[in-house]
Parts: sequence; structure tokens; C-alpha cells
Amino acid sequence: MTRPLRIGIAGLGTVGAGVLRLLDTQRDLLAERCGRPLVVTAVAARDRTRDRDVDLSGVAWHASAPALALDPAVDVVVELIGGSDDPAKALVEAAIAAGKPVVTANKALLARHGAALAAAAEAKGTAIGFEAAVAGGIPIVKGLREGLAANRVREIHGILNGTCNYILTEMRTTGRDFVDVLAEAQALGYAEADPTFDVDGIDAAHKLAVLTAVAFGVEVDFASVHVEGIRHVSALDIAYADELGFRIKLLAVARRSGRGIEQRVHPCMVPIGSLLGTVDGVFNAVVADGDFADKVAFVGRGAGAGPTASAVVADLVDIACGRTAPLFGVPAARLARPEPVPIAARRGRYYLRLMVLDRPGVIADVAAALRDQMVSMESFLQRGRSPGEAVPVVLTTHETDEAALRRALDAIRALDAVLEPPRTIRIEDF
Amino acid sequence: MTRPLRIGIAGLGTVGAGVLRLLDTQRDLLAERCGRPLVVTAVAARDRTRDRDVDLSGVAWHASAPALALDPAVDVVVELIGGSDDPAKALVEAAIAAGKPVVTANKALLARHGAALAAAAEAKGTAIGFEAAVAGGIPIVKGLREGLAANRVREIHGILNGTCNYILTEMRTTGRDFVDVLAEAQALGYAEADPTFDVDGIDAAHKLAVLTAVAFGVEVDFASVHVEGIRHVSALDIAYADELGFRIKLLAVARRSGRGIEQRVHPCMVPIGSLLGTVDGVFNAVVADGDFADKVAFVGRGAGAGPTASAVVADLVDIACGRTAPLFGVPAARLARPEPVPIAARRGRYYLRLMVLDRPGVIADVAAALRDQMVSMESFLQRGRSPGEAVPVVLTTHETDEAALRRALDAIRALDAVLEPPRTIRIEDF
Repeated sequence: MTRPLRIGIAGLGTVGAGVLRLLDTQRDLLAERCGRPLVVTAVAARDRTRDRDVDLSGVAWHASAPALALDPAVDVVVELIGGSDDPAKALVEAAIAAGKPVVTANKALLARHGAALAAAAEAKGTAIGFEAAVAGGIPIVKGLREGLAANRVREIHGILNGTCNYILTEMRTTGRDFVDVLAEAQALGYAEADPTFDVDGIDAAHKLAVLTAVAFGVEVDFASVHVEGIRHVSALDIAYADELGFRIKLLAVARRSGRGIEQRVHPCMVPIGSLLGTVDGVFNAVVADGDFADKVAFVGRGAGAGPTASAVVADLVDIACGRTAPLFGVPAARLARPEPVPIAARRGRYYLRLMVLDRPGVIADVAAALRDQMVSMESFLQRGRSPGEAVPVVLTTHETDEAALRRALDAIRALDAVLEPPRTIRIEDF
Repeated sequence: MTRPLRIGIAGLGTVGAGVLRLLDTQRDLLAERCGRPLVVTAVAARDRTRDRDVDLSGVAWHASAPALALDPAVDVVVELIGGSDDPAKALVEAAIAAGKPVVTANKALLARHGAALAAAAEAKGTAIGFEAAVAGGIPIVKGLREGLAANRVREIHGILNGTCNYILTEMRTTGRDFVDVLAEAQALGYAEADPTFDVDGIDAAHKLAVLTAVAFGVEVDFASVHVEGIRHVSALDIAYADELGFRIKLLAVARRSGRGIEQRVHPCMVPIGSLLGTVDGVFNAVVADGDFADKVAFVGRGAGAGPTASAVVADLVDIACGRTAPLFGVPAARLARPEPVPIAARRGRYYLRLMVLDRPGVIADVAAALRDQMVSMESFLQRGRSPGEAVPVVLTTHETDEAALRRALDAIRALDAVLEPPRTIRIEDF
């Protein structure tokens, strides 16, 4: 047996403790798979006294994360601090500067600084593993970068935020509203005290930006991701979706076209019988469409100590075995910088829900506004009658340009009888 | 750019031509990803005159496959001949003996000789890539061996034969019978003229045996796979399955328990709303259950020139980049040889269909036979009445031992009023 791979771990929260537990539980298995032991020699964490239910005797403690990177008894640095800036960024930069490979679960860091970090790692001839940064226990980075290496990927789409998927699933199965279910998710620990990153789509957008770079061999371009969260999805919309044969999911989509690359995160209706329609609760899924492999889907747990630790340690095994690849599949200098395609250029189907005064002529006005922009209606639902009061009117469109739909919506919003801003949810028939 | 990886391809059927086309189409992309060009320098195929719609000028031709392995202008051998014995076996052995890595799509070869080939490759310090041997374009070998390297896998199950899945899907959507749909599948090229390997489950069993070795780090043990095909699945069973909330799939299952490893391929009912329930037509799927990652599913096209070529070339990219791993995750000498667990030890639910004479007392006799073996009924369906004639009676059981069920079936078969051998389909609620 050759010399051990000596690991330094920064950040001992849920995931850090999970990684320590995994390395302990699978000690023999990993030594066999790597041909050498994986040994934790140092950690960095703020609170030394917290009980993490793992044995840290004989492991060096560092109060400062960047100091961990300089510890001569550390061969590889695992960054589990999180956040797009220091101390996580300083630690990763220090490790790379020291020529040490890094394994990180930090999507925010990669979404913001991925291109620079890829170039820095390459210049030093070292690697950054980030399987754990996207879709938890699903080996999607490896699946795209190596498994589909022979393909030009045309599109990726998927469910990348388990918190939102849990909330949307609960809303559907219980009929309750967003605020109510979010509060419960927070109590259960499935959502953060400040849920903004999750429910406003930012976390999914970080992950999409990173996956887009891997899938298409382009520079990470988080700023170009169109982002909408799930706060405005109502129990009413979920019930209508069901009636129309759809599930509402927070979807992340990146698509390559002749014009460039489109990246978007937003609530979306997908057919009930489709693969994504079956992905419920905290599960994540990614579908990649390659020009030779065609569609390949990956489904699994997107978060949690066990699945995330599984991804972190898979990267450590690769490093221990000497299996490396450029971060985004091709050398950093060769990463393309395609034009971002704006969301207004989307072409597809739409669900609209209007709250209108129940009086004669309203539907005619709405229909005229759509017709004026050449938006063609596919189905139309109005239940019950409440003369003189507000009633929901739901319709779906045939394929149309988002720009045209937006013009129609401006006209609809201006109608007297339309009492609330129209709700729009995109429909995708993958 | 360093020197090219020189590729020799044996077998220029559908997949071989697909690989040539892919290497041509993606020449620049692959050179960028590998840091060196991938170049085909030699081929071996019987019929030199056949039009394959690819340019083979400047490529050396070998009449004998093993000769390809000895060509000094070949660095890596791609075996696409198929079949578990010579010439495929001789070619792979010759390549390994020459210290050259091999990429193969040959599940039969690996299922029969995987352990010996793994040992031989290891002794020579070379690699055998076989991503294309299982589940076509789905990167499942990489996903299990590297992506889930940090896990002890508890179970794998999936749909591994696209021909059977296509036939079962067609039977369901059209209501037609097996023989009819098979004939159509043959006419469309989705089934071979001799469909035995596919419809009798042998192909799926080959793939399962190979995946089992990868997932559990054990020697390939094809002889221990319990195999049943789909010939006896009737349109009637498919209709009843639908009514009971199930889809019938040819399922491959490998499960590790304290007693050893169970491997089985057979028709199976899975819930309509489950992920596997949505995998229709020629698609394949594999679900792996790891002790840290939990369940991870992979879905995609299981066959066809494009998807299979995608997998073959992914292996070539790994070889070109120097990314290698032991065939089955651990060194050949460390592969375990667990006890095979017989199918009679299965515990689970069952669907039974009996054709019985419609006369008083028959159901009481059937129920008594089940009760005598402690098999508990969950549901029971008998439609219409045809006094004195044969009618189908369908029932599902609660969880029971297969051995007990078989004893009950022996007693039921012996009943006068039971006119045909009972049909049994296992139920799995994944």
C-alpha cells in the first residue's frame, strides 16, 4: 500500500461531519478502491467544542481556514465552508497556490468565480473537484464531463433545489399555501431560517450556471441566468396544473442554439407522466440531451449529509487514483464565451391565470389582447359564476414567443376587469 | 498537442459504423477534451465491400481480428464483434497480452469471462473499458464505479433490455399480444430475427451480471442469475396490471444481504407513478441504492448506434486522458465471491392469475391453498360470470416467501377447476 492521501477539511457543519463519518465508516472499502488509505490529518472550524459525534483525536486544528491549505501534512483540501467569498475563496485560492487539489461543495463560489479558479488550478497543474456542489449525491458533473464526453450537449434541464421541490410537492399533496408549507419546512430543517437563496431560485441558478459550464464547455456565466423563484406559485395554480395534466416544478434549463446559450430558472409545468413529473420531495434530477447519446437522466437526493458526503468522497477517490479532468471539460483558455440568449427569446407554451370581474365581455377583451399579439389559445377554464365578483380564469397557449406573450400581458393587465397582475407559468413538454 | 491516440476497431456493424461517424463528427471537440487527437488507424471486419457511409481511406484493414491487436500502429483496440467466444475473446486477449487497452461493448464476453479478463488486464497494467456493454448511452459503469465509489451499494435494479421494454410498452398501449408485437418489432429492426437473447432475458442477465460485479466489487457470476423472459406475459396480465396500478417491466435486480447476493431477471410489476413505471419504449434505467448516497437513478437509451458509440468513445476519452480504474472497482484479486442467494429466498409481493372453471367452491379451494402456506391475500378480482366456463381470477398477495408461494401454487395447480398453470408476476414497490 502506497502512502496515504492526507485530507484537510474546512467547515464541520452537517456536511463536514458527514464526510468525517463516511471516511471512517468506509475506511477499508476506500483503501481498497484507491490503493491507499484516505486519512483526515487536519480540520478548520470555528467552534472546537461542538459535539460532532466523530473522533477527531490526532487531527490538527486550524482556527483560520487558509492556514489549513498551508499545513504540510495536508495533501488535499476539502472546502465545506460555503459562500462565494472569503474565507471559502481565500482557502481555495491558497490551496491552489500551494499546488494542492481542492474538493468543494460550494456552488456559490464556483458560480461567481469558476472561470478564474479553473484558470488558476490549471496554471498550477492541480484539480478542483466539485461533484458535491450540484445535485448532492447524483454524480452529474462526472456524468456530463466524462460520461457524455463524446457528445455536444444540446440542452440540460432539471430540478436542482430540493427545498423548493419539497415545498411544491407538499403544497400539491396537502392543498396548503406556500407560506404555510415554508414555515413547516423551516421547522423540519428542510428550509433555512432565511429561505431567500432557495425559494427565490438563487441556489438553483448557481448550480445551473456551474452545470452549464460543464455541459457546454463554456465560461461560468451566472449573471446571465434568468431567475424566478416559487413565492408566487399558489395552491390554486397547483390545483389547476393537476387538472391540466401537469406538475409545477422549479426548473433549471440551459439550452444551446445558434444564437448562444439560454439559462433560466423558474417555476414550470411539466407533464404528470414525464420523468420530471415523478421527481418529488427533496429529490433532484438532471436531464442532458447529447447529440449522440440523446436524452440521459440522473435522479437522486440533492442534499443531506450522506448524499453530499458521497459526492465529496467520490472526488477524493478520483484524486487518490490520479483521475483528473479540466474543471469544465476543456482547458480554461479554450472555454467558449457564447452570447447569453435573453428569456424574451424563449418560444414555448404558457399557462396564464387571471383574476377577473365576472361580467360580460371580459373574456372577449382578454382573447382580443392575445389575438393582437398572435398568441393562440389552447385551452380555457372558467369554473362557477359569481356575477360582479372576482373569479379565476385559466388558459394555456399554443407555442408562442415570450416577447409576444409579454406584450399581450401588458394589454391584459391594463383591462379594468382584470383585478390582479396575471400569473404566468411556462410549460415544457420534455 | 501531444501524439494522437491510435485506435483499431474490430467489427463494423451498426455500432462500429456509429463509432467511426462519431469520431469523425466530433474530431475537434474530442481533441480539445483529450488534449490529443483520436485517430482510427486500423479496422477489422469481414466484408470490406459493404457501404458504411464512412471514409476509411488511409485506414489499415485486417482480415483477422486478433491481427488488429498486433498492429504496431494501434494503441487501443475497440472490440465490437460481439459474442462470448472467439474471435471477440481472442482479440481482447491478444490486445491485453500486447499491453494495449481495450474498449468493448460485449456484455456476453464480460458476463462469461469478466473475472479472467480483469485479472489478465491488471497483470499487464492495462485497462478494459466496457461502458457500452451495459445500458447503451447511460454512463452507468462510471456512475457506479466512480460516481458512487464512496458507497457500499445495497441494491441495483433496472430495465436493461430495450427490446423487451419496447414490446411490453407496445403491448400495453395497443392491447395486442406478445407474438404480434414481437413480429412488428422484428420488422422495425427493434428485435433480432432470433429474438431469444432478448425476450428470454439472457441479454439483460448478461448486463446484470456485469453491473453486479461493478456495484458490489464481486466476481462476475452469470451462472447464478435467475432468468425468466417475457414470452408468457399476456395482454390480459398487462390490462390487469394497469387496473391494479402497475406497469409490467422486465426487471433486473441484484441485492446484497447477510446471506450473499441475489441476482434475478424477470417480468415484474412496478407502481405506475414510480420512476421505472415511466421508463417506456427502448429506454433503459438503472437505480442504485448506496448506503450514503441513497437511491440514484440513471435513465437513457439502452441501444442504438448513437448512444452506444457515445459510451464507446467516452471510454476512449478516459484512456486518452489517462483516467483508469480497475474493471470492477477493486483489484481483481480482491473481488469477493459471495454466496449466490436463490430466488426461492425472495420475500415480496406477488400477482397471480388463474384460469378457473366458474363454479361454486373454486375460490374457497384457492384461498385454502394459500392459507395453508401462510400466504396472505391483499386483493382479489373476478369480473363477470360464465357459469361452467373458464374465467380469469386475479389476486395479489401481501409480502410472503417465494418458497411458500411456490408450495401454494403446487396445490392450486392440482385443483380440478384450475385449467391452466397459474401465472405469477413478482411485484416490487421500489
